[in-house]
Amino acid sequence: MTHPAPTEPAPVIRAPRGPQKTAKGWVQEAAKRMLMNNLDPDVAEHPDTLVVYGGRGRAARTWEAFHRIVETLDRLEDDETLLIQSGKPVAVLRTHEWAPRVLLANSNLVPHWANWETFDKLDQAGLMMYGQMTAGSWIYIGTQGILQGTYETFAGAARKHFGGSLKGTITVTAGLGGMGGAQPLAVKLAGGVSINIEIDPTRIQKRLDTRYLDEVATSLEDAITRAEKYKAEGVARSIGVQGNAADLVPQLVTMNWTPDLITDQTSAHDPMWGYLPPVSADEDASRLRADHADEYRRRAYDAMAAHVRAILELQKRGAVAFDYGNNLRHRAQEAGVENAFDYPGFVPAFIRDSFCEGRGPFRWVALSGDPEDIRATDRALLDLFPNDERLQSWLTYAADQIAFQGLPARICWLGYRERDQAARLFNEMVADGRLKAPIVIGRDHLDAGSVASPYRETEAMLDGSDAVSDWPLLNFGVGIASGASWMSFHHGGGVGLGFSQHSGLVIVADGTEQAAQKLSRALTNDPGMGVIRHADAGYDHALNVARDRGLDLPSLGIADHTRDGQ
Amino acid sequence: MTHPAPTEPAPVIRAPRGPQKTAKGWVQEAAKRMLMNNLDPDVAEHPDTLVVYGGRGRAARTWEAFHRIVETLDRLEDDETLLIQSGKPVAVLRTHEWAPRVLLANSNLVPHWANWETFDKLDQAGLMMYGQMTAGSWIYIGTQGILQGTYETFAGAARKHFGGSLKGTITVTAGLGGMGGAQPLAVKLAGGVSINIEIDPTRIQKRLDTRYLDEVATSLEDAITRAEKYKAEGVARSIGVQGNAADLVPQLVTMNWTPDLITDQTSAHDPMWGYLPPVSADEDASRLRADHADEYRRRAYDAMAAHVRAILELQKRGAVAFDYGNNLRHRAQEAGVENAFDYPGFVPAFIRDSFCEGRGPFRWVALSGDPEDIRATDRALLDLFPNDERLQSWLTYAADQIAFQGLPARICWLGYRERDQAARLFNEMVADGRLKAPIVIGRDHLDAGSVASPYRETEAMLDGSDAVSDWPLLNFGVGIASGASWMSFHHGGGVGLGFSQHSGLVIVADGTEQAAQKLSRALTNDPGMGVIRHADAGYDHALNVARDRGLDLPSLGIADHTRDGQ
Ligand SMILES: NC(=O)c1ccc[n+]([C@@H]2O[C@H](COP(=O)([O-])OP(=O)(O)OC[C@H]3O[C@@H](n4cnc5c(N)ncnc54)[C@H](O)[C@@H]3O)[C@@H](O)[C@H]2O)c1
Ligand SMILES: NC(=O)c1ccc[n+]([C@@H]2O[C@H](COP(=O)([O-])OP(=O)(O)OC[C@H]3O[C@@H](n4cnc5c(N)ncnc54)[C@H](O)[C@@H]3O)[C@@H](O)[C@H]2O)c1
Repeated sequence: MTHPAPTEPAPVIRAPRGPQKTAKGWVQEAAKRMLMNNLDPDVAEHPDTLVVYGGRGRAARTWEAFHRIVETLDRLEDDETLLIQSGKPVAVLRTHEWAPRVLLANSNLVPHWANWETFDKLDQAGLMMYGQMTAGSWIYIGTQGILQGTYETFAGAARKHFGGSLKGTITVTAGLGGMGGAQPLAVKLAGGVSINIEIDPTRIQKRLDTRYLDEVATSLEDAITRAEKYKAEGVARSIGVQGNAADLVPQLVTMNWTPDLITDQTSAHDPMWGYLPPVSADEDASRLRADHADEYRRRAYDAMAAHVRAILELQKRGAVAFDYGNNLRHRAQEAGVENAFDYPGFVPAFIRDSFCEGRGPFRWVALSGDPEDIRATDRALLDLFPNDERLQSWLTYAADQIAFQGLPARICWLGYRERDQAARLFNEMVADGRLKAPIVIGRDHLDAGSVASPYRETEAMLDGSDAVSDWPLLNFGVGIASGASWMSFHHGGGVGLGFSQHSGLVIVADGTEQAAQKLSRALTNDPGMGVIRHADAGYDHALNVARDRGLDLPSLGIADHTRDGQ
Repeated sequence: MTHPAPTEPAPVIRAPRGPQKTAKGWVQEAAKRMLMNNLDPDVAEHPDTLVVYGGRGRAARTWEAFHRIVETLDRLEDDETLLIQSGKPVAVLRTHEWAPRVLLANSNLVPHWANWETFDKLDQAGLMMYGQMTAGSWIYIGTQGILQGTYETFAGAARKHFGGSLKGTITVTAGLGGMGGAQPLAVKLAGGVSINIEIDPTRIQKRLDTRYLDEVATSLEDAITRAEKYKAEGVARSIGVQGNAADLVPQLVTMNWTPDLITDQTSAHDPMWGYLPPVSADEDASRLRADHADEYRRRAYDAMAAHVRAILELQKRGAVAFDYGNNLRHRAQEAGVENAFDYPGFVPAFIRDSFCEGRGPFRWVALSGDPEDIRATDRALLDLFPNDERLQSWLTYAADQIAFQGLPARICWLGYRERDQAARLFNEMVADGRLKAPIVIGRDHLDAGSVASPYRETEAMLDGSDAVSDWPLLNFGVGIASGASWMSFHHGGGVGLGFSQHSGLVIVADGTEQAAQKLSRALTNDPGMGVIRHADAGYDHALNVARDRGLDLPSLGIADHTRDGQ
């Protein structure tokens, strides 16, 4: 995929490692290293143009802005806050020690203008950048970051439809990009076989190289033959196939072959840059986009319509179909497929129960750069939560199999009153030298209480409050008020401009007593927002969690019985 | 105007006064008193339905929510934060002493759903309320609140078009509601004559009772005759006339009579509830709206179109026309008036220079309830800024003429490095007993750095960044990170859903040393955001202010030379 040409030759970025820092505090040092790590060639999809993942999600607006941010973080005092507006450092203000060191707002537009046309104009004028979720908030950790979430989803599908395992099933999906690349491995972890359609051969190669994909077929027919064989043998295995999903998925219909599961993770949220329409052999897609934008857009929309029509048909024939949060259904609907929403999104289908517990993606990064630090945290968590089976099997697998990208990192899903415990434990391990340098803790914006996104995280809420975005704004405020190290607020993200608003939280465990207090507050309150939001929407499970684990919800008459013991 | 029927009998609310508090800290007590003061019958437009001003801007979602908020504020600890989601208290979280005691998010919707249809459904389902600007953020202080801003605008018009005074000019406007009611007095202060069209006779009476309006004419002809007489005599005077602006403004065209200035402050931002279409003598507008919503909406749009066509014609004939931030032009454009934006908004026309200095609406309230406290602060400010002529003449006038509503309050416009000075002075006066109780300091969301609103505050920005709402989000974050007492983020406000996003800040001067530090940070950084936003957009004036007054803007190479002395 082509992206706007860089204005300067792109430097190759790698975060410093180890226990020596050049910034004035570990929080500032951590922000700098994480920004750099987002752009590490082993982590980012297109580091030359500052694109980290997800179509054109960037870490900084320009290389100039990147350099200014790094410079500023190195001189930032412990009572100052750096402001980032769509990837550009616009000011340093004096705040206080409990305040975040960085506040970021990316890609936010007044709703009436919250569309790609306006954004593209502003982007081209150098006034904005697309922040996606963890790209613009400096906590992307490569494909592993999404692997656990993707695994949660496929494992959820397995529990709901296939008796707990995907063994003996075939999943068809498309898109092997920064996040979609996690699918083949996640399906495999859940026990199944997958066919993964991807237009770009370099993406396929990258997934092979990082062991996220097992093998490549020479054609769709070949892929099906291989898949059926593995299915019959009960072997978990992933197969890539080069081609356009808008051609190949409809071909399945014509061939009269139906998979067990069907989904998609092309970057359909961004019709101009994320979803490639089929082109004939003598055409060049980038040229077409550059020279005939309208024609290109029309063809992308037509392709997405054809793609969704095929998914709907496969669903009719018995496949379990679900949308994987890229807004493909909406694009198809815009292009005339009226019943595009006949198949559900993955959150209401498989994830909402976790959100009711404040359970969501907890990730951490070892600033030492030493994989041994992550191994030590893996072991510590296995000891801390001995009865959480999902966690036990995930962490055991991950420790064994996952190739690190950039700074060593780990992810797992934890809930309310678990994340703060894990974080305080890491902080103690930094303090007493069991870890060699501080640990950065963060999460995806896709979390229990951090996002409003009616076609994804908040699709089909019980009380109909899907579109209410007071919640992520309160989440943004609560993080800032609870000791987060940096907090961000974004618009767009995975489902594209106009369709979501979300906040991101990152916090550093540097081994100090102050960090311990901040970790306690921030990582109790942040997943707490998930429980609160779902309790307010009337989910029984969330109401029970709120009562049992001591939340204080005045309008629901739920009091915190644990306050004194905190 | 009718509003949704209250579910319980409405209590009559008045804030407690004096130096005794029932809450655990003065910040909590202040939040409670200010919420109550917003609903004081002397302050609110429709207290029975919790509507404070601006169409249907509310202070709390329901009376039930109101009572829960008051209760919760009375038990809230000094390290806890109460979360308000569209007027309902949803949670209490443990934070820390420098964090705000209350965080509010009102009327926010994911952009694709940011329209009245979605909002109305959610509102009726009890899931949202309209927060306007200072209604839902508990710092409305009655019509005085807007008087200074309105005065700034008309004085700006006088400087630009009439040699510094409106003496010998006639202004025509409409709407004598909570904010529009400030117009007759503001024009008078600027030296001019005004004709004020208002459909609701009770609104006219209220403005007469509070001395904001001088007299009432019996017809449009009568109003013109009176106005011409005062104009000829050079007398400053305001005249009300009952009628529908969509009838009377076009009548001016037919009568071939042209005023010197023409504008409007009906609640056109809200077509269903804010702008009344003309109805015949045997029709009932409320009935029509209830029973035939579509027909009602169509007629409101047609009326706004006729209204704007007449304004455009008067402009052609020589009147200075400007939009007063109620989105009337956009409504007319939706109804087919293609050139509706041929007359400018008031911000680019008269206010932007102030915003470049971080100059905007600074307001404060005496929790003692004693008008003498406000008089003492008036005198203190006159001493503090002896060379600011606008301030001197405004405060002298205000002290003499303005009738307080609810808790005694004052407003004036101050800029970067002025607001913090004023606030620290008030804090000292509380500490040493010159004032009888703490002072609450706040501002409108309409301010230099707190709002993105392409048809109002950010209309026609130099770099084209009108629609970028990263800025108010950063402003929200900065307030929370700087010691604000309560911070809010709203969508909609004066220009209606879809058209603006803005943040509000309130902070309490309770005489403590900690308050002094918070006041310093918050009231430096908050107006600072105005300078930063305008400097980033390339305004020379803002760039000069940033350089002179010690801001730190990494991307512009501007360093803070005052940091050590802070
Ligand atoms: N959990 C979630 O909800 C979730 C998680 C991850 C990603 N997503 C969404 O999934 C999408 C993918 O994210 P990503 O980071 O992998 O993006 P990416 O841009 O890195 O990758 C997209 C991939 O799709 C390929 N592609 C584009 N059009 C194609 C077509 N017609 N046929 C076949 N392949 C095609 C591209 O070559 C690219 O490799 C995004 O829209 C993202 O927002 C959602
Ligand atoms: N500085 C600003 O930008 C700014 C300041 C204040 C108000 N506003 C906007 O101005 C509008 C008015 O605010 P408000 O608080 O006074 O609202 P309000 O609802 O209290 O008052 C509006 C008044 O207009 C009257 N009205 C409605 N339709 C009419 C018609 N067709 N003809 C004559 N009168 C009519 C109503 O009876 C009411 O008294 C709002 O849209 C507000 O957002 C903008």
